[in-house]
Amino acid sequence: MFKIPRGTRDFTPKEMNKRRCLEECMRSTFQKFGYREIQTPMFENLELFTAKSGEAIIDEIYSFKDKGDRELALRPELTAPVMRFYVEKMQMEPKPLKLFYFGSCFRYDRPQKGRYREFKQAGCEIIGTNTSEAYAELIALAYNLLKNAGLKDIKLNIGNLNILTQIFKKINISKEQQKQLIPLIDKSLFDEVSYLLKEFGIPEKTITEFLDVLQSSNIKKINDFIQEDESAKKELSILNEIQKLLKSSFKINEFQIKMSIVRGLDYYKGVVFEIDAPILGAEKQLCGGGAYELIPLFGGKDNPSAGFAIGFDRTLLTLETEKYEFKPFMLNVYVIPVNEDMIEKSLEITQTIRNNGISADIDLLRRGIGKSLKYASSLNAEKVMIVGPRELKKKSVTIRDMKTGKQELIDIKDIVSKVKNT
Amino acid sequence: MFKIPRGTRDFTPKEMNKRRCLEECMRSTFQKFGYREIQTPMFENLELFTAKSGEAIIDEIYSFKDKGDRELALRPELTAPVMRFYVEKMQMEPKPLKLFYFGSCFRYDRPQKGRYREFKQAGCEIIGTNTSEAYAELIALAYNLLKNAGLKDIKLNIGNLNILTQIFKKINISKEQQKQLIPLIDKSLFDEVSYLLKEFGIPEKTITEFLDVLQSSNIKKINDFIQEDESAKKELSILNEIQKLLKSSFKINEFQIKMSIVRGLDYYKGVVFEIDAPILGAEKQLCGGGAYELIPLFGGKDNPSAGFAIGFDRTLLTLETEKYEFKPFMLNVYVIPVNEDMIEKSLEITQTIRNNGISADIDLLRRGIGKSLKYASSLNAEKVMIVGPRELKKKSVTIRDMKTGKQELIDIKDIVSKVKNT
Repeated sequence: MFKIPRGTRDFTPKEMNKRRCLEECMRSTFQKFGYREIQTPMFENLELFTAKSGEAIIDEIYSFKDKGDRELALRPELTAPVMRFYVEKMQMEPKPLKLFYFGSCFRYDRPQKGRYREFKQAGCEIIGTNTSEAYAELIALAYNLLKNAGLKDIKLNIGNLNILTQIFKKINISKEQQKQLIPLIDKSLFDEVSYLLKEFGIPEKTITEFLDVLQSSNIKKINDFIQEDESAKKELSILNEIQKLLKSSFKINEFQIKMSIVRGLDYYKGVVFEIDAPILGAEKQLCGGGAYELIPLFGGKDNPSAGFAIGFDRTLLTLETEKYEFKPFMLNVYVIPVNEDMIEKSLEITQTIRNNGISADIDLLRRGIGKSLKYASSLNAEKVMIVGPRELKKKSVTIRDMKTGKQELIDIKDIVSKVKNT
Repeated sequence: MFKIPRGTRDFTPKEMNKRRCLEECMRSTFQKFGYREIQTPMFENLELFTAKSGEAIIDEIYSFKDKGDRELALRPELTAPVMRFYVEKMQMEPKPLKLFYFGSCFRYDRPQKGRYREFKQAGCEIIGTNTSEAYAELIALAYNLLKNAGLKDIKLNIGNLNILTQIFKKINISKEQQKQLIPLIDKSLFDEVSYLLKEFGIPEKTITEFLDVLQSSNIKKINDFIQEDESAKKELSILNEIQKLLKSSFKINEFQIKMSIVRGLDYYKGVVFEIDAPILGAEKQLCGGGAYELIPLFGGKDNPSAGFAIGFDRTLLTLETEKYEFKPFMLNVYVIPVNEDMIEKSLEITQTIRNNGISADIDLLRRGIGKSLKYASSLNAEKVMIVGPRELKKKSVTIRDMKTGKQELIDIKDIVSKVKNT
């Protein structure tokens, strides 16, 4: 027997029904926000990802040589491919350019709960604007995508990397030292941050202040702490405006300003944000994004850009954990010919029903009514139609409601309106 | 600048709009026929494909080793993965089991018009029945998928490999000779078939008869030609019934019975069919399928199975060549704040519109009205809403119809009903 590759998944009809529901809901939200869908190939030239994330990424991805000796890689994420697409073919498009995507991504990771070697991401990029309203709208979009999908409990945190840099400067932390601190801050390991700062010789009082500012939602407090730096002051005022617009225009009141959000990636600049689902426990992050700088690195003309990615599988897992009720797959009508002579007419009726936009299936195994009824109920059929010779003579068929068990004889010409109306 | 990998494609919003239209239409047709969607991973263990198609396939696919030294391959087609999924996890499902899929497939092919290294297939499998009505319905589904998508001119051809074998037997063609003939028959190169048969020492008269039967739609003529073989006679009667049901129940009259359809693959048995789009010229095949035997090879309990695959990209190309009019992407409303003080209120209005299921975008670059109108028209916006201080004092905004150029002042509380009604 052949096995599925390790860390990957097959999706049954029931699972696919949920996945398509979620995807459709997300697509509709993206489109309502004026975003338009694009798609890029499943693999890229390896150098695209090493240029963005360094050589170390090779250990975490599927890379391979094709028969022409080109180094390729299954994409581990979609921002780099989308930026490559933008630089190659979309630089002349009117700005701002709002693009969204859905796609499989691949990581050579140790498989564990909620982490797969093939996983799906939904995300978007906006290119050509850096106004506070643009960032507020982007964050609101991420929040709406998850809320419209049906999630109950999510936590939105907003930070800013420029301001974080100024906070580091204020307490005299070198670039080298920042590199050691950032992974700890990213994981909210503040005890270890404190320990490390002590080792760096930072006074106790400064450490307390620093950790306080890092976790504060109070913009005035942050403003008072940082040095007189023009760019950081500007970023703080943008952050203040984002906060205001999220509340007044987008009616989003539940979020935290949190300077400890670092996204752990070199190419983010300025505003960053994350959305978590606390119900998931340790692996709780559903969405991460912010403003970034990649276009010049990929050879394009610099332009402000921002975006986010949502873990599709983890979002689905959260919905399931929160017991979200997905609309189940339904078959509208199941048709049973009572004998072989009824097959031709039954198929014709079945096809007429389908041509009117109603889903219909038919016994294709010449089974008796009993077995067919059992099969119809396994398909979650709403109605069963029984086609027999006596009824057919009167140009009628029997329709049975599978929920109530009620049966009635109806005219063949009324079938479509009968099924449509219920 | 980074380049897209050779033979692959990026899809712009305009192209994605067409692709999603076609996919949605096909999904709806599959579901109306009682099929349910599944999904398998983008790659499989290499041996799955070599078991099905022989070692030679390695030259035509993307295969590679993962970091655990496992031989993997990007899937070149989806029937093998679906059968692997069935054998691994779905053998106990009620029969018949009707499954459909959409998915990217990969072939290491020389890129040329209409052939890509990453391409998309739509397809389905039905497991657990071999009645004539099951085959007729399967063929009707393939035909309906393409017709419902909007294709005008397609050609459906139906053959049968069991009968073809009997035809070979009748004129004493060995298995070895068949192997030489089949690729030529597959490509309808009948002159070369004739030449080769002469070389095999087949009399001229027999060759003429053979070629006549191979291209005949007349089941009686085929019946008279073949030897008294029980299984072939049975297949002929099934073929006859399929023909009858397609016409009477499914109202499909334009098809050909054609014994020269061979599908070029070892695992097909019995009924086979193909659908072409003549407008495409040499690379005209859109769909191929039939009854096949793969379950025992993959370690499962034998069960009749049949299916087909449709080339998604080629179907789209045909629609474009036939000048099919896709519904263009539309933005319902574009909102323009006339100055910075209007941004907050404008964002709030925009979000209210979206919350009512209407797509809305807003100026995120603080441009003047002129530039914003130009941008709105590049987005194909139906309406533009201008939010200014004087109108806002009267709790109103100006709405402009982008088609007629007509402007009117409307009450803010009437915005949603106004936009929804037009």
